[in-house]
Amino acid sequence: MKAIVVHEGGEVSKGATPRSGVKRGVSIVDFILRIVAALCTLGGALAMGTTRETLPFATQFVKFRAEFNNIPTFVFFVISNSIACVYLVLSLALSFFHILRTTAVKSRILLVFLDTVMFGLLTTGASAAAAIVYVAHYGNSSANWFPFCQQYNNFCQRISGSLIGSFIAIVLFMILILLSAISISKH
Amino acid sequence: MKAIVVHEGGEVSKGATPRSGVKRGVSIVDFILRIVAALCTLGGALAMGTTRETLPFATQFVKFRAEFNNIPTFVFFVISNSIACVYLVLSLALSFFHILRTTAVKSRILLVFLDTVMFGLLTTGASAAAAIVYVAHYGNSSANWFPFCQQYNNFCQRISGSLIGSFIAIVLFMILILLSAISISKH
Repeated sequence: MKAIVVHEGGEVSKGATPRSGVKRGVSIVDFILRIVAALCTLGGALAMGTTRETLPFATQFVKFRAEFNNIPTFVFFVISNSIACVYLVLSLALSFFHILRTTAVKSRILLVFLDTVMFGLLTTGASAAAAIVYVAHYGNSSANWFPFCQQYNNFCQRISGSLIGSFIAIVLFMILILLSAISISKH
Repeated sequence: MKAIVVHEGGEVSKGATPRSGVKRGVSIVDFILRIVAALCTLGGALAMGTTRETLPFATQFVKFRAEFNNIPTFVFFVISNSIACVYLVLSLALSFFHILRTTAVKSRILLVFLDTVMFGLLTTGASAAAAIVYVAHYGNSSANWFPFCQQYNNFCQRISGSLIGSFIAIVLFMILILLSAISISKH
């Protein structure tokens, strides 16, 4: 990938116009937002992935224990957040390259597309988890689904909290896509 | 909005270069994809919103009846699909404008941003509904959530099917964002 991009950047003259200053500024903001978003997804994945609670009472045969991986949707949440986090860290290389070469265009289009796919993946994981957390809190009387948050209180607080990081990252992804579109328009 | 864009388009000469031909082609594909996506979201919303099933047996006091609005997540699914459908129909105007004026840039950036927001909304609705449909099919033994699809079979087939339209529209949104980024890069 990089070879193509360097070649492309090489075609254009290195004039330090005000426009390239604006683009460099946008690229720096892009770089910082990616770091913040990576931390948010990492926090979300860790908070969810380390959540377990054992109730302080048990019968002879049953221990009352809740773990995040009892619910497949929460496992998917951890996976989607982890993938998004790894992607964001890897994309820092391309983002840094855009700070140096403000004229690169094809790599920016690639970044918009990958950002969109990752935005979709992260949104899918977070909103699926949110739907389950909602049922865990309020249950559903029509379907006879009991709200288990009434017993596993700490567990529920923790999984609800882990959604926050993910949703902040989702908002940051929207801003990243907008910034990329603005950058592309100024080439 | 339109006034700004027309003004902006007016600055540029009307040369029928091959580049503007490519952009016009991209704009036409954009227009067609929006119509398809609008139909998909409309289909999803209608299929979900008209789903109800009454089981062919009842006690003296209880009628066994399932409606989509027993589950708040399905109501949200219908709302998000309806909003996306209305947005897609309205955005046809801007898309048509881009077929006529291939040089407009600001309106394309606006469209990328709005597309991203709507893509997020639609993904949220569809994946939250998918998470609930999954529990409806397979239940969750840890949480003692019973899979109600074992009784309400038609109901479940219908709600599962309504997700398909929504997920097709999500993929189309990704393509729309990519096409817009390519169009912006060619100005």
